[in-house]
Amino acid sequence: MTTKSGSAIVDRRTVVAGIFAAGVTAVGHGPAWAQADPLPSWNEGATKAAILDFVRRTTAPGGPDFVPASQRIATFDNDGTLWTEQPFYFQLAFALDQVKALAPKHPEWKTTMPFSAVMSGDMKAVMALGEQALVDIIEVTHAGMTTDEFAQTVIDWSHTARHPRFNRPYTDLVFQPMLELLAYLRQSGFKTFVVSGGGIEFMRPWMEQVYGIPPEQVVGSSGITQYTIQPDGTPVLVKEAKVEFVDDGPGKPVGINRFIGRKPIFAFGNSDGDRQMLEWTASGTGLRFMGLVHHTDAEREYAYDRNSSVGKLDKALDEATKKGWTVADMKRDWKEIFPS
Amino acid sequence: MTTKSGSAIVDRRTVVAGIFAAGVTAVGHGPAWAQADPLPSWNEGATKAAILDFVRRTTAPGGPDFVPASQRIATFDNDGTLWTEQPFYFQLAFALDQVKALAPKHPEWKTTMPFSAVMSGDMKAVMALGEQALVDIIEVTHAGMTTDEFAQTVIDWSHTARHPRFNRPYTDLVFQPMLELLAYLRQSGFKTFVVSGGGIEFMRPWMEQVYGIPPEQVVGSSGITQYTIQPDGTPVLVKEAKVEFVDDGPGKPVGINRFIGRKPIFAFGNSDGDRQMLEWTASGTGLRFMGLVHHTDAEREYAYDRNSSVGKLDKALDEATKKGWTVADMKRDWKEIFPS
Repeated sequence: MTTKSGSAIVDRRTVVAGIFAAGVTAVGHGPAWAQADPLPSWNEGATKAAILDFVRRTTAPGGPDFVPASQRIATFDNDGTLWTEQPFYFQLAFALDQVKALAPKHPEWKTTMPFSAVMSGDMKAVMALGEQALVDIIEVTHAGMTTDEFAQTVIDWSHTARHPRFNRPYTDLVFQPMLELLAYLRQSGFKTFVVSGGGIEFMRPWMEQVYGIPPEQVVGSSGITQYTIQPDGTPVLVKEAKVEFVDDGPGKPVGINRFIGRKPIFAFGNSDGDRQMLEWTASGTGLRFMGLVHHTDAEREYAYDRNSSVGKLDKALDEATKKGWTVADMKRDWKEIFPS
Repeated sequence: MTTKSGSAIVDRRTVVAGIFAAGVTAVGHGPAWAQADPLPSWNEGATKAAILDFVRRTTAPGGPDFVPASQRIATFDNDGTLWTEQPFYFQLAFALDQVKALAPKHPEWKTTMPFSAVMSGDMKAVMALGEQALVDIIEVTHAGMTTDEFAQTVIDWSHTARHPRFNRPYTDLVFQPMLELLAYLRQSGFKTFVVSGGGIEFMRPWMEQVYGIPPEQVVGSSGITQYTIQPDGTPVLVKEAKVEFVDDGPGKPVGINRFIGRKPIFAFGNSDGDRQMLEWTASGTGLRFMGLVHHTDAEREYAYDRNSSVGKLDKALDEATKKGWTVADMKRDWKEIFPS
């Protein structure tokens, strides 16, 4: 699949984002960093110094920048900030894999677009069908089942699917420096949240184990769910093919307000979709930290910014430069990319 | 105002609930109960024993009913469960007070229904106008301002308004036994949430201080908010007069799934609007606690159930009896009602 195909998907993302949903109990904890250097995978330099300085100042009791623990809210974008998002969003990879998995039950798909094209791997043909094709794909893979069934599907997929370039499970392609940052913030009394354009039900099943972030601290796009009593009397929530909320761009401050109810003092993103979240964070009083991951390492991961269809970083990069926000340059600042 | 008027309001609640919204930082902590009896305001008896037994069993390491701390999710309805809801929902009292406060800026209201009726205290006339009157009242009092402005209005109101019968601030009319229960659960490793049909932006400004429950653990009805950049460059969220989500009845499991992402093991309500939340809680595996507050004390608070318009308790009471859920009888089980 070419980047071009991926890009067509992304341009339409706000339309299809959100026909997702979960309710899960994968339990675990992020790595604990008790050693002297809480960020061993970050190279020494201005970026690492800015992070350490911010945390030290906001947590120093009696200091001028001290922030009470209850207000130490840190929000992170997911795609491209905590894990890789190339060659296209991993949730789309999941959806395409699900079409293939469901195909035996749908013999009619052999002759029905876009499913026949997905099955033969002809993404160009899928994309040529336009937006409706993606809506159809999301519909059959993200709706018409209970939230528990969907969560199980996501967990199963995360155990078996492999990234085409790295040949590793997608949940292995998380950024080691960011795992350290999450753990460091929590050790410093911060409450860490994910605020992502991705589907909330797609993220929650694995994030507690992988990031140490529990379901109730994951904010994302969502679809309508319907409370339904099954014939045996068991209540379930059935996922419907209707977008309820798109947590992207200006939707991020809205989602932060709705789910968290207070302004973060620390936020990290990587694309123009995170710009408003960073602006919102910056607009509060007192010391604030606004960060962007800049993907500059084609060798170890990917290099893209202003002209990328996936995770386009253009206006937010200009704003970061203008306002002195912290830009983490992947090639320069990160000693390691993925957990070894 | 008669109960009958209150009832008309309630019947239409699902229509008007939700044109609300917040983002606040009232900081504080619930009372800590280090003494031997964690529930001193509960009389000895089956109800208190059931609570203590549930907490002991779910927190005993190695025991057959042990639940890991991360899964100890407890959800509480607010109106009628954590504070009084008579003679009508306190949020409606707030809205009516706001109409009066805003009146000087709206001379035209003197001759415009329903505002003229509100100002002259003629609730019968307001109710006679039907649903649209309530929508109008909610619109002018809950929309057209920023979330920060609204939160400040709620805080100011909570400091000055007085309940007509008890002549105390509304936030004093919280149930002492429930404050103890919240603190006891938290001391036992539970994460406590409010899951209420009330407006999320109406509840968050004061709940951290009063209940020890931070904004991010308050789930409620909500209205649409719009991310807007003010002329001076400051971003704000503007509350619109459009309902986004009604967190009541079957909306409660939906809200729990959306905001919390996992099933509670403990839930407390007081009316038919909590029935689905209790059913949803009961449907999980392992030990579960489902509780109802039954208002049986006209002398110290109010006595109402099956025929009440506010907080009607009918089907849920039958289901509780049938399924052996715990019913806290206010008169019998509570030594104290309000904090002294």
